Amino acid sequence: MVLKNDRFLKALLRVEVDVTPVWMMRQAGRYLPEYRAIRKQAGDFLSLCQNPELACEVTLQPLRRYPFDAAILFSDILTIPDAMGQGLYFVEGEGPKFRKVIRTAEDVENLPDVDIASELSYVTDAVSLIRRELNGQVPLIGFSGSPWTLATYMIEGGGSKDFRLAKKFMYDNPEAMHELLSKLARAVTDYLNAQIQAGAQAIQIFDTWGGILTTQSYQANSLNYMKSIVENLIPENEGRKVPVILFTKNGGQWLESIVDTNCSAVGLDWTTEIGIARERIGSRAALQGNMDPTLLYTSPDAIRREVKQILKSYGPGAGHVFNLGHGITPEVDPDNVAVFVEAVHEFSAQYHSGE
Amino acid sequence: MVLKNDRFLKALLRVEVDVTPVWMMRQAGRYLPEYRAIRKQAGDFLSLCQNPELACEVTLQPLRRYPFDAAILFSDILTIPDAMGQGLYFVEGEGPKFRKVIRTAEDVENLPDVDIASELSYVTDAVSLIRRELNGQVPLIGFSGSPWTLATYMIEGGGSKDFRLAKKFMYDNPEAMHELLSKLARAVTDYLNAQIQAGAQAIQIFDTWGGILTTQSYQANSLNYMKSIVENLIPENEGRKVPVILFTKNGGQWLESIVDTNCSAVGLDWTTEIGIARERIGSRAALQGNMDPTLLYTSPDAIRREVKQILKSYGPGAGHVFNLGHGITPEVDPDNVAVFVEAVHEFSAQYHSGE
Repeated sequence: MVLKNDRFLKALLRVEVDVTPVWMMRQAGRYLPEYRAIRKQAGDFLSLCQNPELACEVTLQPLRRYPFDAAILFSDILTIPDAMGQGLYFVEGEGPKFRKVIRTAEDVENLPDVDIASELSYVTDAVSLIRRELNGQVPLIGFSGSPWTLATYMIEGGGSKDFRLAKKFMYDNPEAMHELLSKLARAVTDYLNAQIQAGAQAIQIFDTWGGILTTQSYQANSLNYMKSIVENLIPENEGRKVPVILFTKNGGQWLESIVDTNCSAVGLDWTTEIGIARERIGSRAALQGNMDPTLLYTSPDAIRREVKQILKSYGPGAGHVFNLGHGITPEVDPDNVAVFVEAVHEFSAQYHSGE
Repeated sequence: MVLKNDRFLKALLRVEVDVTPVWMMRQAGRYLPEYRAIRKQAGDFLSLCQNPELACEVTLQPLRRYPFDAAILFSDILTIPDAMGQGLYFVEGEGPKFRKVIRTAEDVENLPDVDIASELSYVTDAVSLIRRELNGQVPLIGFSGSPWTLATYMIEGGGSKDFRLAKKFMYDNPEAMHELLSKLARAVTDYLNAQIQAGAQAIQIFDTWGGILTTQSYQANSLNYMKSIVENLIPENEGRKVPVILFTKNGGQWLESIVDTNCSAVGLDWTTEIGIARERIGSRAALQGNMDPTLLYTSPDAIRREVKQILKSYGPGAGHVFNLGHGITPEVDPDNVAVFVEAVHEFSAQYHSGE
């Protein structure tokens, strides 16, 4: 199938394009009234993730409104622990929770291996369906949470302010923690490879909570496992390289070591100046980011100013995928998203010589 | 008055000492049963801050238990906006709130200048009293929140998950924001100078929320105002230099520019590797930090291992004040604090040649 818009994949491989490609983390989400309607129809968030037709529909919704250069599978980062029997559920306004928690080496021991093909077929079915419906309009991104990020939720039983249980487990039971992370890394690898085989054309690993660690514990407990995933992913499919983006929120101090994983691109949150990041990593990887999502609450003028500033900071040439520095939030006015996407395409042309 | 233990002040000026000095952010706090007793007696948190005798008592409590090398004034970072009439109050388990909020340029315009001498005499009285009671045992640290951090609370009306109101104000009303930050910087300067005159022997500025900004907006809206404060503080008192510590949580990417303010020391949270920080800033400033406070929930062995690792990372020589990377939390076992403090003194001797 011919890909009509391959800016996103090209930019991830640092190949020149006509304008900087752009997508948004959580672009299929609650800020869209049409998403809220489907979500209501599905019942709850998890039912929506588990229904391939509805997941496909919400994946495509933002593309009907905005000229995004990529689609991202609608799913949750915590599908794997759920498939391991941990009982994922969502409480409105409180984020994800697990019915079972990991607190001992024995809990880790008893954690079953996941049969991706059967337990997570709702995800691969959604990927296949989205690819068919996209019909080559833009590439499709598959994703998972990082092993460390999954482990924090599994140990804490949900989100946390200071992750003291997850950190206590890591510091007091380092062997059991590494056993847990190894199990998760194997499952994430299989899961992402299943997404690639079903049609995902690029992969993003969300390391939402790597940035709460010390440098040493980040390397050992988060980055190390992402590296093993990157090494074991299917490198090419349908005759194209499948680029991998690693996004560690608050990971700006560790860009050089993130690039050492041989990922294709590094996701940046907004606290890192993208031009400085580019100087630091040179031509070793592409960069994705990094407008502060709260800019979408400001005026169109402020949004355009910030987009210009980020494009200027990155400068001319290939290797930049524009994105927010974190997911879009539910209360954003959809009109401001249009301003954002148009500004990226309009103001970036001057920095590119590709076609 | 003779200072019996000047390790802390020496280390801040990068003068050699016998062992690495140590104190803890929030060392006078809820993890101590004797603190909870006084807090109960005072009624609420703000009444405790505003009572010099009780504030003095809780400041001294941790020094009776542990061989800390510095005392820090017991107070709140938000006393200035409260003195400006914003109506600070505390809801148990929810953090600080303000009855009035800043939402327009007019609100900024109407914000009164603070007469530190009258409005905040409870703070300077506490400083004088603590100095008298300390009787030269260890030096006393005075402090304030940074202008940007104060502004976020004043605009949001309290804490926030994403600070969208504060950021919206900054992006949409940059002139009014700079007017607000200028007013706050003048007040913080006067306030800290009053603390120095009352006897504070070192100053720490808590920039709790600088790290939520982009690099450019951090420089313009937070660091720039801290720089003007550093420039206008009383440099010496009682024949000694008064060192200034700047602590921007999540500021690890910006150490070089923080040092450009001519502060004496930079506070590090635990995400920055202290040895790498030392390489980056050389001999331009001392470093304070940086054990993850959640280590205090782990075993004595894990605490000692981490203390050793941080001391080794900093390496031999002057210029390190040991601390946590953020405040101690209420549920910590006080015995683990003893393990922490003793480990710093015990394991650091090998890195020092001073006396």
